[in-house]
Amino acid sequence: MSLGRGKIVRVCPSPALFSYYQAAEQVTVVVDVLRATSAIAAALFHGAKGVIPVASIEEAETFKGQDVLVAAERGGAIVPGFQYGNSPLSYINNPEIKGKALVLSTTNGTQAIEVAKAHGPLVTGAFSNISALTTFLHEQCPQDVLVLCAGWKNRINLEDTIFAGALAARLLQLGYGVDTDADATLTALYLFEKAQKDMDAFMANSSHRNRLQHLDLKADIAWCMQEDTCPVIPCLEEHILIPRFL
Amino acid sequence: MSLGRGKIVRVCPSPALFSYYQAAEQVTVVVDVLRATSAIAAALFHGAKGVIPVASIEEAETFKGQDVLVAAERGGAIVPGFQYGNSPLSYINNPEIKGKALVLSTTNGTQAIEVAKAHGPLVTGAFSNISALTTFLHEQCPQDVLVLCAGWKNRINLEDTIFAGALAARLLQLGYGVDTDADATLTALYLFEKAQKDMDAFMANSSHRNRLQHLDLKADIAWCMQEDTCPVIPCLEEHILIPRFL
Repeated sequence: MSLGRGKIVRVCPSPALFSYYQAAEQVTVVVDVLRATSAIAAALFHGAKGVIPVASIEEAETFKGQDVLVAAERGGAIVPGFQYGNSPLSYINNPEIKGKALVLSTTNGTQAIEVAKAHGPLVTGAFSNISALTTFLHEQCPQDVLVLCAGWKNRINLEDTIFAGALAARLLQLGYGVDTDADATLTALYLFEKAQKDMDAFMANSSHRNRLQHLDLKADIAWCMQEDTCPVIPCLEEHILIPRFL
Repeated sequence: MSLGRGKIVRVCPSPALFSYYQAAEQVTVVVDVLRATSAIAAALFHGAKGVIPVASIEEAETFKGQDVLVAAERGGAIVPGFQYGNSPLSYINNPEIKGKALVLSTTNGTQAIEVAKAHGPLVTGAFSNISALTTFLHEQCPQDVLVLCAGWKNRINLEDTIFAGALAARLLQLGYGVDTDADATLTALYLFEKAQKDMDAFMANSSHRNRLQHLDLKADIAWCMQEDTCPVIPCLEEHILIPRFL
């Protein structure tokens, strides 16, 4: 692992720690594997023209009646009165989203976007777009990379940390370095190394799995842990996540 | 691992996340392995009658001239104008501290105490007192345990997380459970499991090691990673850490 040469990758384990990890010049990768950023990749890859992340339910409500889809999730479930939540599966091969914008408010993912959006370029990442994202960061972003884990209500979670480790491992292989205060990045790398041997067994103990057990999200979770199902890079531009393709 | 039976152990990876991890009834274990809580155990085991943690250098200054020792560390070094810093070795077999109170201000450890001290009983932990601490928590504390990692300027660090994992592993063996949102605890347990196979190699990559390399703290670090050199439990009472012995 090289120190201080070329571009740097950093991991921030919780949105509440963002200010302690941000650098002057960085592109932030917001990660909410279960399930906001997996859903964003799914919607954009399957035809949505943009995703508008909004932090509050109230703001999502104001979009109703407009020519957009409006989605809101809290605590893992679709908010009553909304048609969609954050299940990626609901956006795959769904003719309703073709050419439409999707307004999305979720428990953690859109909150993390809110924290970071004023601090340089922002993209979203998930296993579903990890290879495309890696190439995009490496080839098209001159900045350091900050991987911002959305976590769960500002607490850290395993799946976002593991994804951060997976992305960091790929970037390190491409020549990125870590800085002198890299313990959060090292933690993510260690967790990923441990998890990748048997992701299913690893995730079986995770809080998210336990928390959402009653919601029967097995199919969602299995889909979210798959790599490269949606090779698109969601890029925030003027408050809208726009699909970029390599 | 049992869920929700008996007492619970939680890990909070950074003082900045304390409010997201605190419970109604808990005893907080503040951890700053390198080196504040190692130094606190050393000072109390080697004869200091109490340690007064103060957050600011200014507050530490006000104690000068009183019948106490005054210690202040920032960025790993003794603050100019102070006799002591946070090296545990400086308090071992040192006749100056016998029967005296030690006023201590450090970069991270005393800040973490500041964050938690209004929220129930508080003790400090390090490898130097891990067994005594475990027994004390198990036998004398009816509350859940929150292990609060001091980290480095609110960023997470490896050594405090590893210690949190080591303490959590011992408490789980004694029948403590984890709650449904346990990913920070699981992360600490995984890191400890990986680190304990070869602590030295593991720590070689740590940020603290890199950050403080120029200060030649090898002897300090080696000492801080040893278990049970100072079997004392520092308990905060009226703003002073008092030594308790089993």
